[in-house]
Amino acid sequence: MTDTDTSSTATGNWGRWGADDERGTLNLITPEHVLAALQVCRTGKVYSLSLPIQQHGVPIFDYRGAPRRYTLTSASDKDPYTSMGGAPGLGANEDMLVLASHSITHMDALSHVYTEDGIYNGFARDEFSSRDGAPHCDIRATGTFAGRGILLDLPGHQGVDWLEPGHVITRAELDACVDAQGTEVRPGDILLVRTGWLDLFEDGTDDFAQPGLGVDAVSFVDDHEIAAVGADNAAIESIPFDDNVFLAVHIELLVKRGVTLMEHLKLAELAADGCHEFFLSVGALPVTGAAGSPINPVAIG
Amino acid sequence: MTDTDTSSTATGNWGRWGADDERGTLNLITPEHVLAALQVCRTGKVYSLSLPIQQHGVPIFDYRGAPRRYTLTSASDKDPYTSMGGAPGLGANEDMLVLASHSITHMDALSHVYTEDGIYNGFARDEFSSRDGAPHCDIRATGTFAGRGILLDLPGHQGVDWLEPGHVITRAELDACVDAQGTEVRPGDILLVRTGWLDLFEDGTDDFAQPGLGVDAVSFVDDHEIAAVGADNAAIESIPFDDNVFLAVHIELLVKRGVTLMEHLKLAELAADGCHEFFLSVGALPVTGAAGSPINPVAIG
Amino acid sequence: MTDTDTSSTATGNWGRWGADDERGTLNLITPEHVLAALQVCRTGKVYSLSLPIQQHGVPIFDYRGAPRRYTLTSASDKDPYTSMGGAPGLGANEDMLVLASHSITHMDALSHVYTEDGIYNGFARDEFSSRDGAPHCDIRATGTFAGRGILLDLPGHQGVDWLEPGHVITRAELDACVDAQGTEVRPGDILLVRTGWLDLFEDGTDDFAQPGLGVDAVSFVDDHEIAAVGADNAAIESIPFDDNVFLAVHIELLVKRGVTLMEHLKLAELAADGCHEFFLSVGALPVTGAAGSPINPVAIG
Amino acid sequence: MTDTDTSSTATGNWGRWGADDERGTLNLITPEHVLAALQVCRTGKVYSLSLPIQQHGVPIFDYRGAPRRYTLTSASDKDPYTSMGGAPGLGANEDMLVLASHSITHMDALSHVYTEDGIYNGFARDEFSSRDGAPHCDIRATGTFAGRGILLDLPGHQGVDWLEPGHVITRAELDACVDAQGTEVRPGDILLVRTGWLDLFEDGTDDFAQPGLGVDAVSFVDDHEIAAVGADNAAIESIPFDDNVFLAVHIELLVKRGVTLMEHLKLAELAADGCHEFFLSVGALPVTGAAGSPINPVAIG
Repeated sequence: MTDTDTSSTATGNWGRWGADDERGTLNLITPEHVLAALQVCRTGKVYSLSLPIQQHGVPIFDYRGAPRRYTLTSASDKDPYTSMGGAPGLGANEDMLVLASHSITHMDALSHVYTEDGIYNGFARDEFSSRDGAPHCDIRATGTFAGRGILLDLPGHQGVDWLEPGHVITRAELDACVDAQGTEVRPGDILLVRTGWLDLFEDGTDDFAQPGLGVDAVSFVDDHEIAAVGADNAAIESIPFDDNVFLAVHIELLVKRGVTLMEHLKLAELAADGCHEFFLSVGALPVTGAAGSPINPVAIG
Repeated sequence: MTDTDTSSTATGNWGRWGADDERGTLNLITPEHVLAALQVCRTGKVYSLSLPIQQHGVPIFDYRGAPRRYTLTSASDKDPYTSMGGAPGLGANEDMLVLASHSITHMDALSHVYTEDGIYNGFARDEFSSRDGAPHCDIRATGTFAGRGILLDLPGHQGVDWLEPGHVITRAELDACVDAQGTEVRPGDILLVRTGWLDLFEDGTDDFAQPGLGVDAVSFVDDHEIAAVGADNAAIESIPFDDNVFLAVHIELLVKRGVTLMEHLKLAELAADGCHEFFLSVGALPVTGAAGSPINPVAIG
Repeated sequence: MTDTDTSSTATGNWGRWGADDERGTLNLITPEHVLAALQVCRTGKVYSLSLPIQQHGVPIFDYRGAPRRYTLTSASDKDPYTSMGGAPGLGANEDMLVLASHSITHMDALSHVYTEDGIYNGFARDEFSSRDGAPHCDIRATGTFAGRGILLDLPGHQGVDWLEPGHVITRAELDACVDAQGTEVRPGDILLVRTGWLDLFEDGTDDFAQPGLGVDAVSFVDDHEIAAVGADNAAIESIPFDDNVFLAVHIELLVKRGVTLMEHLKLAELAADGCHEFFLSVGALPVTGAAGSPINPVAIG
Repeated sequence: MTDTDTSSTATGNWGRWGADDERGTLNLITPEHVLAALQVCRTGKVYSLSLPIQQHGVPIFDYRGAPRRYTLTSASDKDPYTSMGGAPGLGANEDMLVLASHSITHMDALSHVYTEDGIYNGFARDEFSSRDGAPHCDIRATGTFAGRGILLDLPGHQGVDWLEPGHVITRAELDACVDAQGTEVRPGDILLVRTGWLDLFEDGTDDFAQPGLGVDAVSFVDDHEIAAVGADNAAIESIPFDDNVFLAVHIELLVKRGVTLMEHLKLAELAADGCHEFFLSVGALPVTGAAGSPINPVAIG
């Protein structure tokens, strides 16, 4: 760690990578880390960590609305190409997609959450524009990355189907899971935490409460120089929020430290395979000005 | 090749992987191929192959419309969380995205093009529904894959900025480029062809014609057992279409053979780095029923 | 009635106004009818018959989704016009609207419902195209009309808050209401039927059943040469459908007779004022190819 | 004029109808005006004043995007109701609409334009929220009205096809047209000004300049107690703006006086018929929070 100042994490990472930085802890992943990450694969199995994008059967917040697919062109357009010399019967099916940037499986850009002090790295809290979105820290700044992913399968470790709704995950629980799994944690790792909440959702719960990280667990991210954090729940953190501080963990990780967050990841298959380390690549939609994007992260076991 | 019947390519791959197959030539990528593909990386540099998603400065077909980002929530919503106990000044920026499945950098699902005989593998040409989209071969069937990618940098090889608009790329040109680059081609590879068209677009052309693959080049895909094909142009193939057969190469590759296609890939940086082989992973949006998706493929050099 | 063939209503109005007709019973409203309709007004009070268009508190079918308003431009766009010489602080608020053609208060174009025999006047049942919508009988053909409106306030007449969910309104009930109200019915009239269902909805029901017209009531439309029909419920007709024939009244009125239908009309204020005849004008959005439109009919008491 | 304070127009109408007023000069239309307006009709002809809503052939500003109709349901959905007992072949065509509130023929809510002093009646300039839109002066406050409309057909009067692009219409020109037409102007009237620009547009111009009202013409609105103003051009006012003051007439009429504005009205048919007075009713989409709406005003000749 020659290019970082770990002491700065006490007051967050603002300025750590320069006043212009829009990438946050993804700076911790160097090309060397990427090359090393490729070596952890054992099976070559390819995992999609995204839930399907559809109207029903997936977790959707009302204010975001259900994602929609509309048909743009189809065989109902009679022989669309014959006027241009196309063969009879030839045509193309295409769609229009209308969906929230933060719907279902998605990642947060570093402009996603603002506090009275601003967004990550001190950019102004009110600079997000109706017309243009984020002038700083949009999804293009952080939407493409790859590295070593590790899975902490908390319900697997604890022998339960899922952590209880509202359960606040502590640092000690993460450490215990690491030890039990025998998973080495390395600087620049992408940490994926399975709470089991998606399984509870699929089981039909209508409980709004969710298990998730608490503020106490943030030190795990600091101490291990974690580059990004994902989970299978709605907000990485517990709901209700830890100590009833609204978005407490988002403030600590996303805003103060510039830690990229990914939510509603589908982690059950990795867990079932006992795949606790893998190569992970993420290619979000590079929407200029957007504060997030739906993602389909690809893990290689 | 014990699990394939190459003679079937004379009449395409329908039935080659069973009557129910919806994955086409992506079946050629086995876990062994994936593990081998990880070994080709040399630099650990991470490339995004997607153009930005925005209204201007990127290639957009009028009937698809420009992709749009609208603001869902922002600091213009005064203290949105205070009623729930949130701190003053705290809030979140979120977006709504409205975009065509086939806009800018995207991939085609195997249901994308239909002929009078149907879509890939003989599924009915008119089964794409306004309400539900594709019951077979939607983007979920093929949207997640990874493997060895190779770049054939035709303008780089030919010493030009771009191939001429309308130029029909032949098998011989691909072979010559392979030889000149010294690029080994392996079964299961993902073939990316740089025509230079994106550079021409950025240069300000308003010529609708584009360089691209001709039907003659399809034998390259067959002979090398290519799993997927991408290019920097609008349609993989040349416009006007080879021999004026509308969508000639789509019919040969996508419909008959089930070859996944990716269009408007940003390949200039790979070319500039002389990076002709790499690990490539693609995680399309898994939209149930969709005939395609915008993508941000991630290449590791 | 010199320009109509009432016997044709036995088999519907197909061909009644020519093989090319796309306007159906709106043909019954002549300029003379319109001039006469202007004379019925007594108070000059202007009524909006549309519910608000919003996400909550209004009846929405899940498959249509809630209508959405997004911000296109606002003061969050810092001084958007200063670069063009605009004054500091000057700008414009604008919106994007995303809504179903048949959401909340709306009217059906004559292409809305198809049977195995086609849509109104025998146009092909499958000619509605993904790309272009309706080539015949789109909302532009019928979306603008005006004339004499009459309100049959069934719950008012019957002394109840609303008709029971599932209640099938008969011809006799309409006749009794006409008599009790002392409302003259004239050829070319626009018939609005209040069932009270909207009041029940606002009362918080989650009953899917609704009161509405039955097939028996269709003779009222025929005998009085009614030009258009509206109601405060979701489908004009009862749900469950009369005699369990799916869309029975739509088939009789919209498809066979070309009677324009308007749904989820807000009729309580007219009823409360005892305003049973009025001038009514409707200006639907003239969306080329659309099978319907949200409307805000204007009644003058 | 007993209910108005004309002196207040020197500093606009803020406060004229109370500090809470959100309706502006539409307050000038009383029920008596409406009843009187009904008496001006002579022919009973019904006019739609809206251009078609479609992607091409109509004036569209790039930042608003072209309005889009997508198919929600159609016959491509195989027998959608058979599972619920519907007859084979029965189904419904429905659409999704995606369009700017201010696209093509539309009206401005009084929250549309803000200055450094706020919107009409002094509501805060930055209260328009991404999530909720306008808390004051949304389209619901002004979207429904009716009264006497008058047409000033300037090119008809001046014997030209259209006024020149950039031409600034003066008070004297309006007065001369009134005199020549012999049109009486009454308090509470809705003033429609034909500049001929739409004809120029249809003639294929690509000139961004447009003829329209200048600041000098505002006194016509004041002196005659006009309730609302519409025109066939993009912004009521001339482009470039009068005296190069950005949105000069919007500021005078919409912001200071609370005068409802309607743009891109289709006025050629009224003009061709020599119909200079008529009953006009407007029912905008009552979208909660919206700063405008597409409209299809209905005129009765």
